[in-house]
Amino acid sequence: MTNWVYTFGDGKAEGDASMKNLLGGKGANLAEMSNIGLPVPPGFTITTEVCTYYYAHQDTYPTDLKDQVTAALTQVEKTVGATFGDAENPLLVSVRSGARVSMPGMMDTVLNLGLNDITVEGLAKQSGDPRFAYDSYRRFIQMYSDVVLGVDHYNFEELLEIHKEENGYVLDTELSAEDWKELAQAFKQKTEDVLGKPFPQDVHEQLWGAVNAVFGSWMIDRAKTYRRIHNIPGDWGTAVNVQSMVFGNMGDTSATGVTFTRDPATGENTYYGEYLINAQGEDVVAGIRTPQNLTKASRLKAGSDMPSMEEAMPDVYGELADVFVKLEAHYRDMQDIEFTVQKGKLWILQTRSGKRTAKAALKIAVDMAEDKIITEEEAILRVEPAALDQLLHPTLDPDAVKDILTIGLPASPGAACGIAVFTADEAEELAKNGKKVILVRQETSPEDIHGMHAAEGILTSRGGMTSHAAVVARGMGRPCVSGAGALHIDMDSKTIKVMGRVIQNHDILTLDGSSGEVMFGEVETVQPELSGDFSKLMGWADKIRRLKVRTNAETPLDARTAREFGAEGIGLCRTEHMFFDADRIINVRQMILSEDKAGRELALAKLLPVQKQDFVDLFTIMRGLPVTVRLLDPPLHEFLPQKAEDFASVAAAMDAPVEQLKMRAETLHEFNPMLGHRGCRLGISYPEIYEMQARAIIEAALEVSRDGGDAIVPEIMIPLVGSRKELEILKTKVSAIADEIIAASGASLDYMVGTMIELPRAALQAGEIAHEAEFFSFGTNDLTQTTYGISRDDSANFLDDYIQAGIFEQDPFVSIDQDGVGELVKIAAERGRATRADLKLGICGEHGGDPASVEFCHRIGLDYVSCSPYRVPIARLAAAQAQLKEKQA
Amino acid sequence: MTNWVYTFGDGKAEGDASMKNLLGGKGANLAEMSNIGLPVPPGFTITTEVCTYYYAHQDTYPTDLKDQVTAALTQVEKTVGATFGDAENPLLVSVRSGARVSMPGMMDTVLNLGLNDITVEGLAKQSGDPRFAYDSYRRFIQMYSDVVLGVDHYNFEELLEIHKEENGYVLDTELSAEDWKELAQAFKQKTEDVLGKPFPQDVHEQLWGAVNAVFGSWMIDRAKTYRRIHNIPGDWGTAVNVQSMVFGNMGDTSATGVTFTRDPATGENTYYGEYLINAQGEDVVAGIRTPQNLTKASRLKAGSDMPSMEEAMPDVYGELADVFVKLEAHYRDMQDIEFTVQKGKLWILQTRSGKRTAKAALKIAVDMAEDKIITEEEAILRVEPAALDQLLHPTLDPDAVKDILTIGLPASPGAACGIAVFTADEAEELAKNGKKVILVRQETSPEDIHGMHAAEGILTSRGGMTSHAAVVARGMGRPCVSGAGALHIDMDSKTIKVMGRVIQNHDILTLDGSSGEVMFGEVETVQPELSGDFSKLMGWADKIRRLKVRTNAETPLDARTAREFGAEGIGLCRTEHMFFDADRIINVRQMILSEDKAGRELALAKLLPVQKQDFVDLFTIMRGLPVTVRLLDPPLHEFLPQKAEDFASVAAAMDAPVEQLKMRAETLHEFNPMLGHRGCRLGISYPEIYEMQARAIIEAALEVSRDGGDAIVPEIMIPLVGSRKELEILKTKVSAIADEIIAASGASLDYMVGTMIELPRAALQAGEIAHEAEFFSFGTNDLTQTTYGISRDDSANFLDDYIQAGIFEQDPFVSIDQDGVGELVKIAAERGRATRADLKLGICGEHGGDPASVEFCHRIGLDYVSCSPYRVPIARLAAAQAQLKEKQA
Repeated sequence: MTNWVYTFGDGKAEGDASMKNLLGGKGANLAEMSNIGLPVPPGFTITTEVCTYYYAHQDTYPTDLKDQVTAALTQVEKTVGATFGDAENPLLVSVRSGARVSMPGMMDTVLNLGLNDITVEGLAKQSGDPRFAYDSYRRFIQMYSDVVLGVDHYNFEELLEIHKEENGYVLDTELSAEDWKELAQAFKQKTEDVLGKPFPQDVHEQLWGAVNAVFGSWMIDRAKTYRRIHNIPGDWGTAVNVQSMVFGNMGDTSATGVTFTRDPATGENTYYGEYLINAQGEDVVAGIRTPQNLTKASRLKAGSDMPSMEEAMPDVYGELADVFVKLEAHYRDMQDIEFTVQKGKLWILQTRSGKRTAKAALKIAVDMAEDKIITEEEAILRVEPAALDQLLHPTLDPDAVKDILTIGLPASPGAACGIAVFTADEAEELAKNGKKVILVRQETSPEDIHGMHAAEGILTSRGGMTSHAAVVARGMGRPCVSGAGALHIDMDSKTIKVMGRVIQNHDILTLDGSSGEVMFGEVETVQPELSGDFSKLMGWADKIRRLKVRTNAETPLDARTAREFGAEGIGLCRTEHMFFDADRIINVRQMILSEDKAGRELALAKLLPVQKQDFVDLFTIMRGLPVTVRLLDPPLHEFLPQKAEDFASVAAAMDAPVEQLKMRAETLHEFNPMLGHRGCRLGISYPEIYEMQARAIIEAALEVSRDGGDAIVPEIMIPLVGSRKELEILKTKVSAIADEIIAASGASLDYMVGTMIELPRAALQAGEIAHEAEFFSFGTNDLTQTTYGISRDDSANFLDDYIQAGIFEQDPFVSIDQDGVGELVKIAAERGRATRADLKLGICGEHGGDPASVEFCHRIGLDYVSCSPYRVPIARLAAAQAQLKEKQA
Repeated sequence: MTNWVYTFGDGKAEGDASMKNLLGGKGANLAEMSNIGLPVPPGFTITTEVCTYYYAHQDTYPTDLKDQVTAALTQVEKTVGATFGDAENPLLVSVRSGARVSMPGMMDTVLNLGLNDITVEGLAKQSGDPRFAYDSYRRFIQMYSDVVLGVDHYNFEELLEIHKEENGYVLDTELSAEDWKELAQAFKQKTEDVLGKPFPQDVHEQLWGAVNAVFGSWMIDRAKTYRRIHNIPGDWGTAVNVQSMVFGNMGDTSATGVTFTRDPATGENTYYGEYLINAQGEDVVAGIRTPQNLTKASRLKAGSDMPSMEEAMPDVYGELADVFVKLEAHYRDMQDIEFTVQKGKLWILQTRSGKRTAKAALKIAVDMAEDKIITEEEAILRVEPAALDQLLHPTLDPDAVKDILTIGLPASPGAACGIAVFTADEAEELAKNGKKVILVRQETSPEDIHGMHAAEGILTSRGGMTSHAAVVARGMGRPCVSGAGALHIDMDSKTIKVMGRVIQNHDILTLDGSSGEVMFGEVETVQPELSGDFSKLMGWADKIRRLKVRTNAETPLDARTAREFGAEGIGLCRTEHMFFDADRIINVRQMILSEDKAGRELALAKLLPVQKQDFVDLFTIMRGLPVTVRLLDPPLHEFLPQKAEDFASVAAAMDAPVEQLKMRAETLHEFNPMLGHRGCRLGISYPEIYEMQARAIIEAALEVSRDGGDAIVPEIMIPLVGSRKELEILKTKVSAIADEIIAASGASLDYMVGTMIELPRAALQAGEIAHEAEFFSFGTNDLTQTTYGISRDDSANFLDDYIQAGIFEQDPFVSIDQDGVGELVKIAAERGRATRADLKLGICGEHGGDPASVEFCHRIGLDYVSCSPYRVPIARLAAAQAQLKEKQA
């Protein structure tokens, strides 16, 4: 018999923390917490296998599920000492989802289940608080109707507003037990009016309705969107947790709160939490009331005069602090804990490893490793490489002049700037068109996820540090300022009124998610400082990793930045990028538009000294490290003159008629420039271009070497090779020039000649090509284009359709397509090494900075990855993780 | 000791016909002819290995070569009874090249070698004809100076002209022995003047000079060009044949001639040759004197009053006819024979399998098979599939009105039309730009090869049926009219004067290479009739071949033509080609420019009935055969309106503002349309398009099936698939429509859904894709583009550079790149069949009509090839040859 249901509570449980796949994260942790003796309200978990069964069997359950639920419920009843549906002493339960990984706000929850017209009276008697009982009942009716029965919550909010108006009430606290009772009846009636059938009074019907709703919500659009963004497979399913209710809203000795054992924004080792007296959990999370601080220190820091829990409930706070210590020690990670105090008794409702910013992840990992709680290797694995991005990007210049509109909560760190937009849809649309946007909302909800993902930053006028906006923004690495109450956001007119000023739709705003500042206009930024924890973790990673990390850089600035970020050389210097400067492009144009070799050589002679100086600069910065220079691979059309004055100035420089140049430009037009006369094909047609570049490289290397110091080993890379013969011809020419210059100099210089593998044919012919190439660098951008037959420039038209349809799991230009492009890389690496055992292998496409791709490169045995400067640390960490994962496997 | 030299003559030889690789074609045949007792002037062959050695060792020879040559020469001296360099009885020799395959006119020849101021006297005495001796001597000096020493022949022609003028001579025959002696001295002096050193008098120096010149000429540009065009590897090398001279110019009992044992133009079983009395061989080949017919019958047919050899020399003719019979029986093929009659004695100088037109190849192969000289299988292998092209193209309409300018020799069959050009360079250049040209020359020379290759047809005013122009044109399959003496070609003014008319440069001419007619302007043509020998050979091929042959066709005309040519179904119906008609394109534009699905559906509804009718027509024509319909894969930009009036008419049809459509067209612009939003990507984005097409296909198939008869099995092909998921999604939609229509019709209909494999990723993922696909069709055009990263539209800019540099052996869009593209096809075939054993595999790129590619497809086990209608017979023959070659291997 399959065990579909696992009980917990009362200091023991059928499951444990290792059973996340079966019980979901929440269920496994509830079981674990029970096992280690924490005060967990008793309950049971219906497994994720039931969810899978449910979807595999046309929304039906295993036949023996019902009996198992009944048995578990009976056990809970016994432990709690109350009976489900009992008129005198009714057991109330919560029903929540719980997937393998946390999906905050994505799944529906029902509280206070088990209340009906009869049991509500029992609750009133048992609690001695009819007002609480009827408030709970109306909350249950509202929540159940909304989540399970699909009756929109505004129906009930409207009734409440009318009732308050009619009675002259302002705050909910002014309502009496009678008021709530009356409203509960009105709510029931409303649901009946909408649905045409009464609100269920049978508590078992209520329970199964809620269970169905949880399983049903696994497949709603916003859950699918979240899973898509976070790469969570749909077949994992969710578990359902049914747990006896405890109440934080049973008067002033009751409370509810959410706490992190460390600061999830900074990683500081201080409790970081919020609580509300006489409230239920959703009051904290939903951001409807602004919660109070947990500790006195944080209250003082925030300048709040509302008492902290440490001050208001010192005993319970003490118990809670003990729980924090116990849980962090047990789980060896920072925990995100939900608790409720019911009439002075502490209950732990949930614990899980807390979401954190990259900065916090880094600090927590390093702190814990230094405190020997975890190993250095574990610390390395604790930080998501891609999240480092948040640390590596500029923050606001502290000396910049800021036009501060208001200060909200520093909900997710980092600076962001963009135009204000007021809906998630518009945010997504404008971002698609390349606009940077700040999503402005009163508060966010799961329906806004796509807009938050598209935005540079998120600004809300309501909600705390654990509000939906804050939690999701931190998870996504988006800067966020939440609860900026001074902002009056008008969704209709799409304006923000603040301190007498009006911000219009599409005005530029800047947010500082680390300080909570909201500024008008664009504010200058500064580079991040990469020391302390960052360099410690990077140091540990560097000790572990096998894969080298280089950078793609052409400018001295990029090269220096990358070297500071730990780049171990340049993996790709795109020489055509050096030619866009205004004072150079005229010579490049002259070269391109020349009808003959003499004309090209004239232009090349002018380019030689500047090109040589480029390499002198790069070699000097990268002293002692390899520098791979790719010979010209121009997108010809980008260099061709467009404007009349451009033609005129080139014509003047060449002393040729404009009309002739226009005709020449016309003949150079290509239908598919990506598949055109580019890369080494130019080298074959016009060998003088590559000869000039080889000369510039070798002369520069000799010049830099002349004053001693670490050796320069230039790696000359021939692009877009498709056959051995192409490389053979060009290598011969390049080597002839190089050897001649070296011999004439009287000095000695090592250099290498290799090629990009960026065409499927090159990958297949790698065994032949390796006879000529001393190294391969995989140009996975172009290889992706040709393997898929998709132009990066044109893919936007259907990329979304493809991700929606599940054809692409991810944009293949972001993370390497391991099945297709990856197989070609693997084939090329194997065939290349079979010919030349010491063939140096690297990757220099954008994928070099993508953690999953870095892991792939490690696995297939490449020597290095090369990526943009800001991605170098990401690649270093990802390379170390790849090594550790290999070791574990 | 390596044997570098092989002797022959006197009824025996060291070599034989099997040693072509070592002795070259000519040398092996001279040995073979000696062995079978034919009268071959004694001589020896220096092997091709010496040539290879020569180029591998900086133009030096094996050390023991000289001794071997000396020994062989001594043997020849003994056999002939004359001594090389002897003052009294000198041995004279010819020195000729002889590669593994014949390269007519490409390699240099020296005759009469061994003459000097002393031996010429001996020759005069021995022959009793001082005039002959001095004429021979001056010929030798001229030829040797030109070919070996590099002194241009015009130097000597000029001296001859001056001498004739000074003496009032018109014809060469008027010159006396003294005249020739004087000229010989003048020729020698001229050479000394030009070179600054005397003409060599040492006969051994002469001999080695000539041998060097033969080997040296292997690497001259025109030889390399010929090899490139004919795919002959450079490392085969040439042999050198040194053979004792015999003289056709020893008076009126001497003669020289060239003969084919059958007619090389028509294949008719009649001797086909020319001879000249009192002449040397080059007089016939060079076209300086117009030769006489060999047989009386041919003389009568040609209306000539010059006696045929049969009439003038009946005895020798009889001997010659016996040799023809003997040689054809021995070699089991039509022979091309050079002979000389010296004072009534017949000598056979050379035999080889004769070059022939496709028509002749076909007739000879079929005749010989029917006469049981060769087997049917041999007959199949005797016809070059690509050459069938000549038979399949239109000839002149016999009823067309022709403006005949003159009638020349019918040197190479077929009709050609184009603009008259006067140089090979211009012919090549204009042809590259898509012009059809007729190359007009007084006579052609090897320097004209590239222009002849580029031209549609060749017209000369001088030279016979075996002139350079005629032989080369037949080999290339170019129609040629030679010796059209009525034409006065003026190279300076680039005009032709004929019968009082003047043809200007670039005027249009039409040639009929089968009749010799030269016409002004363009003349109507008729389709070839494919019966008789053609259908016999095709029948034999069809019995042998395993590979099926289908056609690529969209129009009823193409489909019918292909079926007549033996197509076994349609392998590729490109539905986008059906949409270019003026009355349809407006609806297509409306579909493309619609902003929404409703707009597209409106346009599709208009296209449905016409599209359905297209399929009804095709299915009716192809009844009983499979028809693969590729769903829309439009090059979007080709359909977008360009002109203002096009926009206006679409706007009117859509009732939308022109500006809006222009904006929409702008957003549809793609940088690289080949890698853009096309193929199944459109199907994913706009499923309604494929749904309409599926409906049209199935409804048409049902309609055609309704009246009974052979079944229609439509094969629905989804293009540009890169992953299983894409195909799965589209197949589901297509099948749903199809099944619904079939069910509603109450009839039954089989159909298949499959895909194009035209992206490298698709090839690699074939194992997955085959789960969804019932067939694969390899789209090797696109697969070549993506595997190489080369756009077919843009490759012209560097294709020539690539072929010149030896990077491409052939245009990869013409013959499949077996190493790269081919490997992907192989991988896909293997992986696809591993998943689905009965997966149907075909190829539908242009390569389907290329014989080498067809052989490749056979070898890797495809089920069929599909090609353009006119290539169907070529593919059928190539498929049979592939099967036979496999059997032989």
